[in-house]
Amino acid sequence: MRPPMQSASVGTTGSSATIGRCLLDLDHTSAEVIRAILQRSQQHLLSGPDARHDTLDGVTVANLFFEDSTRTRVSFSIAARRLGADVVDLTGKGSSISKGESVADTARTVEAMGVKSIVVRHHASGAAQQVADAVKCAVLNAGDGRHAHPTQGLLDALTVANALDRAESFDFSGLRIAIVGDIAHSRVARSDIGAFVKLGASVVCVGPPQLAPRSLAAMGCDVSHSLDDVIESCDAIQMLRVQFERGASIGSSRSYVDAFQLNEQRASRMKRHSIVMHPGPMNRGVEITSRVADGDQNKIFAQVTAGVAVRMAALEMTVS
Amino acid sequence: MRPPMQSASVGTTGSSATIGRCLLDLDHTSAEVIRAILQRSQQHLLSGPDARHDTLDGVTVANLFFEDSTRTRVSFSIAARRLGADVVDLTGKGSSISKGESVADTARTVEAMGVKSIVVRHHASGAAQQVADAVKCAVLNAGDGRHAHPTQGLLDALTVANALDRAESFDFSGLRIAIVGDIAHSRVARSDIGAFVKLGASVVCVGPPQLAPRSLAAMGCDVSHSLDDVIESCDAIQMLRVQFERGASIGSSRSYVDAFQLNEQRASRMKRHSIVMHPGPMNRGVEITSRVADGDQNKIFAQVTAGVAVRMAALEMTVS
Amino acid sequence: MRPPMQSASVGTTGSSATIGRCLLDLDHTSAEVIRAILQRSQQHLLSGPDARHDTLDGVTVANLFFEDSTRTRVSFSIAARRLGADVVDLTGKGSSISKGESVADTARTVEAMGVKSIVVRHHASGAAQQVADAVKCAVLNAGDGRHAHPTQGLLDALTVANALDRAESFDFSGLRIAIVGDIAHSRVARSDIGAFVKLGASVVCVGPPQLAPRSLAAMGCDVSHSLDDVIESCDAIQMLRVQFERGASIGSSRSYVDAFQLNEQRASRMKRHSIVMHPGPMNRGVEITSRVADGDQNKIFAQVTAGVAVRMAALEMTVS
Repeated sequence: MRPPMQSASVGTTGSSATIGRCLLDLDHTSAEVIRAILQRSQQHLLSGPDARHDTLDGVTVANLFFEDSTRTRVSFSIAARRLGADVVDLTGKGSSISKGESVADTARTVEAMGVKSIVVRHHASGAAQQVADAVKCAVLNAGDGRHAHPTQGLLDALTVANALDRAESFDFSGLRIAIVGDIAHSRVARSDIGAFVKLGASVVCVGPPQLAPRSLAAMGCDVSHSLDDVIESCDAIQMLRVQFERGASIGSSRSYVDAFQLNEQRASRMKRHSIVMHPGPMNRGVEITSRVADGDQNKIFAQVTAGVAVRMAALEMTVS
Repeated sequence: MRPPMQSASVGTTGSSATIGRCLLDLDHTSAEVIRAILQRSQQHLLSGPDARHDTLDGVTVANLFFEDSTRTRVSFSIAARRLGADVVDLTGKGSSISKGESVADTARTVEAMGVKSIVVRHHASGAAQQVADAVKCAVLNAGDGRHAHPTQGLLDALTVANALDRAESFDFSGLRIAIVGDIAHSRVARSDIGAFVKLGASVVCVGPPQLAPRSLAAMGCDVSHSLDDVIESCDAIQMLRVQFERGASIGSSRSYVDAFQLNEQRASRMKRHSIVMHPGPMNRGVEITSRVADGDQNKIFAQVTAGVAVRMAALEMTVS
Repeated sequence: MRPPMQSASVGTTGSSATIGRCLLDLDHTSAEVIRAILQRSQQHLLSGPDARHDTLDGVTVANLFFEDSTRTRVSFSIAARRLGADVVDLTGKGSSISKGESVADTARTVEAMGVKSIVVRHHASGAAQQVADAVKCAVLNAGDGRHAHPTQGLLDALTVANALDRAESFDFSGLRIAIVGDIAHSRVARSDIGAFVKLGASVVCVGPPQLAPRSLAAMGCDVSHSLDDVIESCDAIQMLRVQFERGASIGSSRSYVDAFQLNEQRASRMKRHSIVMHPGPMNRGVEITSRVADGDQNKIFAQVTAGVAVRMAALEMTVS
C-alpha cells in the first residue's frame, strides 16, 4: 500500500513567509505569504519581459490541463521559460489525457517522468488538492472548478498595488474594491476576495442576488445588488466575464447589461484615480463597453503582464 | 482611450532595405526589401540545419494560429528556436483561443505577456493587419484568408533562385514562372505573384476561367487557361494544391485532372533545367502524379527547407 | 525519380552492438543491441531526472503523432530536452497533420525542415517502417498499430532488471514473466515478448483463448488461459490495459475480471520478491485492483521513470 500522505497538500507551510510545496488556494494562505509572493513578483515585473533567470535550470514544469485554457497555460509557460525551466504540455479534454485513469494516477505518472512542478487546471473543484495529495513535487492550481485560481487573485492584487501606489507595503488598508458579476460561480472572484481581504482592502461583491448572494459575506466582504450604489466609492473594479460558454444564466441579458455593465456613464462617476480590471477574455458590449475597456482607467493588459510575474514567483517559491 | 496607432501596420518601412515591424503581405513590400530578406535567408540556408544563433536570445515568439496549420507552425517554431528564441503556441479553432474575444484583444493579451513577435494565421483576410494594428511588437502573417502568405512567396522565390542560379542577384529577369490551379482563392498564389513579379520574372497564372480569371492580369501577370500551351516555355511551375477540405469546386474532377494535372507526359515537355514546385501537402494523383512529384525536377522538399531559412530571416528582421 | 532506399529501414545494423539509424521494433533487434541500449538507459536512470546533457545540442526532434498519446509524447519530449535537443510536436488525427498527404511525404517534409530524429506514432501497423523508408534521418517507433512499441518493451525490461537485480548483466535467465490480457492485439505485448525472450527470460502469455491464442508460442513464449495456474511461478507480471476505447471485446466484462484481474487474493499468492507492472493508464477495478496497484510489489511508476531513460538512450544511439 502507498503510505498515506497526510498534510501533504496544505497551501503553505511554516511561519517565516516561506511558501510550501503547493499553491492551491488563497483561503489557506496567510497575508504574510501572500505579501512575500507579491514582493518577489514585483521584482520580476520590474525586471521586464527580457530578463532571463536560471533559478529553474534543469527543472521540468508540466502544464496538466484537463480543461482548456490557452492563455493561462501560455502565461505559465512563459513564466517557467524565463526561469530557465523546460515546459511540457498535457492538455485536452480529460479523456485524452487520462483515458479513464484517475487524476491521482495521471499526476503520479507525470511526476515519475521527472517533472518537478505540476501546474494543474481541472473542471472539478478540489482536483488540485487531489493532485497535491498524490505527488511529492510542487503543485500550482491554475483553476479548479469553482474553487480557486490563486495566481489570478495574486496578479489582480499586484495590479492594484502598482496602480494605486501600494507596491512597497502591499497593504491595501483604506482601499475599496468591487468585484462585479457572477461571484457565486467564479473561482476568480473567490481568489480575488481571498487576496484583497487579507491585504486589508474592503471588498464589495456586486451582482443580482442569484449571482451575488448575501452568503458571500462569510468571506469577509460586503454584498451589493446595485453597481450604481457602489461605483463612486471604489478604488478598483474587477468586472467578471459573463461566461456564456458555461451556460451562465443571467436572466434577461438585457436587464443584466442595464444593471451591471460598466459603461461610460458609470465609469465617469468613478473616482479620478480609480482603475478598471477584467480577468479576460472580455465580452465587449456585455459586461464592459469598448470605450471603457480602452479607456485610461483600464488596467486589463497590466493584469496580463502581472500574471507572468506572479507565476514566475509562484514557480520559484514552490519548487524545492 | 487607447491612442490610435496610425501607420502601425505597413508591411515595411524606410528606404534602405530595412524591413519594418511587420511582414503582412508582399504587395506592399518593395523589391529592395524582398531581396534583402532573401539575401539573409540565403545565408541561413547555406549555414545548414545544425547552425544555431543567439540573435533572438531572450525573445519569446508566439504562434497565434486561429486556423490549424501544423507544418507552417512547426516551420516557424524551428526557425525561431534556431535563433535562440522561446516559442509558445496558441492554436485551435478561434473559439478556444479567444472565447469570443476580438482578435485585437487576443493579440494585445499575447503582447502583454511579453511576447516580442506574433506569427498569426487566421481564416479571415485582413486578420494579420488587425493584429498589427493592435500591438506594438513584430507581426508576421502566416496566412490570412485569401489575402496573403508572404513567407510562402519568399520561400518559393528562394527556391527558384537557388535552382535556377539567381541566388546572387535575386534578379528573375528572363525567367518565366507558371502558377497552376485555383489562383483566385489562393493566398499562396497571391504572394507568389507578388514576389516573382517584383523580382522581374514573367508570371503566368494557369487554370480554368473560374479559378484563373482574366482579372488576375491586374497583378502584373499573364493568364492562360491551358497548361499545355505554356508548359514548354516555363522555367518553373508551381502546382497549387486542390483544396478539397475547403470545398474546392473544380467542376468535374476528371476534367480538371485531364487539363491541369502535371503528369509525366506534360513534364517531359518542360525545358531540361526547369523545375517543379508545390507548396504542399500534395494530392498525388490529382494536381500532380507521383512520378513527377518524385522526379528529378522536383524542388518540393527544397521549398520546405527554404521555408525555415526565410522564416529565420523574417523573424530576425522584424523583431526590434 | 527518387532513388529507392534499399535496406534503409532495418531496425539495427552492424555487429558491435551499435544501434542503427532507426528503432522500429525489437523483433529485428539483437539481444546484443538490446543490452547496449539498456546499459546506456541505466546510466541515465542512475543520473536522475535533474541531469542535463548536451549530446543532442542543436538537434531538432519531431514527435510525429498521427495517433494521440499524450504520455508517450511527453516522455519522449522530456528525454529529448534532457539531452539538449529542441522538440517540435506534430500531433492530432491524421487528417490535421497530413491533409490527405501520404505518410511518406509528411515524413519527408518534416525531415526537410532540418529535423534529425522523427518519433512516430500511427494507428496503422507498418507506418513506422514507411517513415523510415522515406527519410534519411533517425526514426523511432513510438507505437504503430498492433505491430510494435519498442521503447515500451525496453522500459519494461529495464524495470524488471532493476527490480530483480539483473541490471549489471541484463541476463534474464531463470526469470519467468507473465503478460496478462489482450496479447493478440497489443503492440506492448509484442515488444515485451521480444525484449524478455531475447534477454533469456521465460515468458508466459495469459488470457482467454481469443486474446491469448496458442499461436503466440511462435514468438518463443508459453501460453496459458489461467492466471491462477501461473501466478505462483512468476517473478514479474505485466498486466495489460483493457482498451475499452478501442472497443475491446472481452466477452462478459465480469467473467474477464473474475478470471484475469490481479486482485489482492491473487497477488498474495505471488512470490515474495515478485513485481507487478502495468504500461498505464490503469483501469483500477478492471484489470487490476487499487490495493494491488498501490501495493509494495507495484513497479508501475518505476516503469514511467525507466521510460524516459530508455528514450534518452534510444534518441542518442540513433541520431548520427
